Amino acid sequence: MRLVSAFILFTILLPGQARSQNGALVLQTDFGLKDGAVAAMKGVAYSVAIGSATGSITGLATETAFPTPRFQIFDLTHEIPAFNTWEAAYRLWQAISYWPAGTVFVSVVDPGVGSDRKSVVAKTRSGHFIVTPDNGTLTMVARVIGIDSLRQIDEKINRLPGSAASYTFHGRDVYAYTGARLAGGIIRFSEVGPALSPEVVMIPFREAGFEAGYFHGSIPVLDEQYGNVWTNIPLSLLEENGVRVGDRLELQVSKGSQILYRGVMIFGNTFSAVREGEPVAYANSLLNLSFGINMGNLAERYKLSSGPEWQVRVRKL
Amino acid sequence: MRLVSAFILFTILLPGQARSQNGALVLQTDFGLKDGAVAAMKGVAYSVAIGSATGSITGLATETAFPTPRFQIFDLTHEIPAFNTWEAAYRLWQAISYWPAGTVFVSVVDPGVGSDRKSVVAKTRSGHFIVTPDNGTLTMVARVIGIDSLRQIDEKINRLPGSAASYTFHGRDVYAYTGARLAGGIIRFSEVGPALSPEVVMIPFREAGFEAGYFHGSIPVLDEQYGNVWTNIPLSLLEENGVRVGDRLELQVSKGSQILYRGVMIFGNTFSAVREGEPVAYANSLLNLSFGINMGNLAERYKLSSGPEWQVRVRKL
Amino acid sequence: MRLVSAFILFTILLPGQARSQNGALVLQTDFGLKDGAVAAMKGVAYSVAIGSATGSITGLATETAFPTPRFQIFDLTHEIPAFNTWEAAYRLWQAISYWPAGTVFVSVVDPGVGSDRKSVVAKTRSGHFIVTPDNGTLTMVARVIGIDSLRQIDEKINRLPGSAASYTFHGRDVYAYTGARLAGGIIRFSEVGPALSPEVVMIPFREAGFEAGYFHGSIPVLDEQYGNVWTNIPLSLLEENGVRVGDRLELQVSKGSQILYRGVMIFGNTFSAVREGEPVAYANSLLNLSFGINMGNLAERYKLSSGPEWQVRVRKL
Repeated sequence: MRLVSAFILFTILLPGQARSQNGALVLQTDFGLKDGAVAAMKGVAYSVAIGSATGSITGLATETAFPTPRFQIFDLTHEIPAFNTWEAAYRLWQAISYWPAGTVFVSVVDPGVGSDRKSVVAKTRSGHFIVTPDNGTLTMVARVIGIDSLRQIDEKINRLPGSAASYTFHGRDVYAYTGARLAGGIIRFSEVGPALSPEVVMIPFREAGFEAGYFHGSIPVLDEQYGNVWTNIPLSLLEENGVRVGDRLELQVSKGSQILYRGVMIFGNTFSAVREGEPVAYANSLLNLSFGINMGNLAERYKLSSGPEWQVRVRKL
Repeated sequence: MRLVSAFILFTILLPGQARSQNGALVLQTDFGLKDGAVAAMKGVAYSVAIGSATGSITGLATETAFPTPRFQIFDLTHEIPAFNTWEAAYRLWQAISYWPAGTVFVSVVDPGVGSDRKSVVAKTRSGHFIVTPDNGTLTMVARVIGIDSLRQIDEKINRLPGSAASYTFHGRDVYAYTGARLAGGIIRFSEVGPALSPEVVMIPFREAGFEAGYFHGSIPVLDEQYGNVWTNIPLSLLEENGVRVGDRLELQVSKGSQILYRGVMIFGNTFSAVREGEPVAYANSLLNLSFGINMGNLAERYKLSSGPEWQVRVRKL
Repeated sequence: MRLVSAFILFTILLPGQARSQNGALVLQTDFGLKDGAVAAMKGVAYSVAIGSATGSITGLATETAFPTPRFQIFDLTHEIPAFNTWEAAYRLWQAISYWPAGTVFVSVVDPGVGSDRKSVVAKTRSGHFIVTPDNGTLTMVARVIGIDSLRQIDEKINRLPGSAASYTFHGRDVYAYTGARLAGGIIRFSEVGPALSPEVVMIPFREAGFEAGYFHGSIPVLDEQYGNVWTNIPLSLLEENGVRVGDRLELQVSKGSQILYRGVMIFGNTFSAVREGEPVAYANSLLNLSFGINMGNLAERYKLSSGPEWQVRVRKL
């Protein structure tokens, strides 16, 4: 408690140095939850949160009485498909805007662990922090929200002490550790490491557009739990080009040169705009054009999936 | 900290107005954990918890120094099968009694999102709060624990600011937001919205009974991880009708007119009442009659499942 | 808050009695996350954390205003395969060292629930506490870290009040409850129950070795998400016998008398030591010899798995 009071005092006396973190650390990985990997990351983070990360790889030994953790630890998802940096980029963007500014995200989908890919912390224009390998994971956030500034993690300072012999778990040794130190105010953003030009590795993707009466776009991800097809065509583009709730839309889904689905459906506000079992077009929770079947699974029925080769073409009838 | 002190003072001065919440918000959905949906809900809830839910759909911008969250966020489960309000009702009941009174539950299995199903907060006779669409999710709690009072969520007040353009994610925009405001004491239960008669949508189910020497009941859910078959026949009904630990029971499981399993087994306290690989009857953790195989998987072996059409008939030998 | 202050005072006045817990309770089970079982455990733990565990099986009724939880609740994993005490032992060891001393772990893989297996709390030499049935779950921690002292849980004191009629969910009624009381400082380690000799049930396993130019060992678990094969051969044993990064290793994997894989690969620091699709040997995050395919899935391609019958033989070329 005294520690916290001291910090508050410090913050009051040096308002120009006020920390912008907000007490939340949010983790995303492709590790799954079947083993102890995510729990090891959380252990490192919690050790930092209570000020006891001595960081021996064989045991953290400090004992304290009634520590008050400096931040809480949350999960974004740990079910990103293995090595899939694109999906990491999308899920990060899907959730980030709903967290308050100052939230520190750690995203570890890191097929190039130990290679020369950079370890960075990005500060977004919205005031969020993202600790991640710079391998495409920042694509959507950079494109839609924007990167305010970028720093490379200096592993001489920001690496779990005692972890140097391990080369394959930077999620635990570098990213969770650095994210926790940032979330807990142990370090400021400026202390992450040297500033970089705020240009990050971008995964190429085709923007949605409207041409000659047709909207075209791609299927960045599925809404897997329900089999809905999410496109990257924003509601605003539809509205600017005359599409209104209640209109009928013709949809075509193709993978490369192969057409896998063709259908006509109502553009409704919700699934209940149509009867059970019928297809419907709607704006999803990110306000992008999407398609589904009321109480059904469109993707499963027509074997639709997501990725750069999956294209949609939409026309108002 | 000053905010908290002020609240404590307020509570002391106005004891008649003491809040009954207890600092816990527990989330249940059928969203799965593969995407960012649950994390978006948690972001909204955390924003409320630290008092920064400005609620722009493109970014929450308030910065605070060392916020103290007003409540913690927990998960019940996010693996309810898609659209399955019955299973939501059962899992809610399975867990709720083990949480202290005042816990706020948010349950979002919402196939009718955007339809005219009501959005409600129920206060149970046990003092728990449940924020949910009124679509059957409250069936078990209403039947076994009882609804003390019910209010309809007034979305003019209790909806994430800036979310009006989204019609398909009330879990994030209405339920998580309202549940968080209730858990954090931002609103009192009376401020949720207008009071309703405490009658909720009930999913019909057949009660267990005892007639002519036979116990009969249904299989509301499986204990899926182990393949145990859970019935709705309470231990008390067995005991009232002379069944004791050590008795032999004859079990018949049918789906509609089809009999899928017939067997005789000991009624034991635990699985270790029989040898490995042998079937056993026991009272499960909710004190209902159940059946399993010691170190085996009964449901898988005999292709048994759960739902209203699955019936059991039991006789003491 | 007054309660906390009193505790702090107490701790200051009686330094010799300082509690060694640190505010973290970490849960591991084989329950999966599809039902309400883990949430029931967390409800019991949270009730203890805010001091309201009256423990009626039909409802916990105490109301408090703004409780401050005494500890936070985390998950290790709940996806241990059903009944698999060996995997529980391994995952516990995989994560434990990354949590600060004083963390209380509750591990419930309990096929013998209700049998005469003992319910214990182990204090490790590293200062961690583990609440578990003594059924092999402590094997790896006992072997690698060491058990400092062991106590049997006295269920007359340390059992959820009102839960005596339930025989099959000690995870909720005994282990979560006792772990929470220990994590929250309601009881000291000495109040768990009678001291036992610190010898725990050990699952037999073959140690790794080096003989006549061959390293031999077993495959305790897979790194399932990526299909990497983890052995129990420590990096130190390789180094002592002349293996260096850059060397070529010959690997043979057998199950019983059947050889399932034979190959030659570089011993690299990371996957990026080889091209995509090529096999590589490396030291995993626990500093044991492991094998994988860069951006591929070695276990899936060659149908490799883990367990005592899976053996590896390795030779430096």
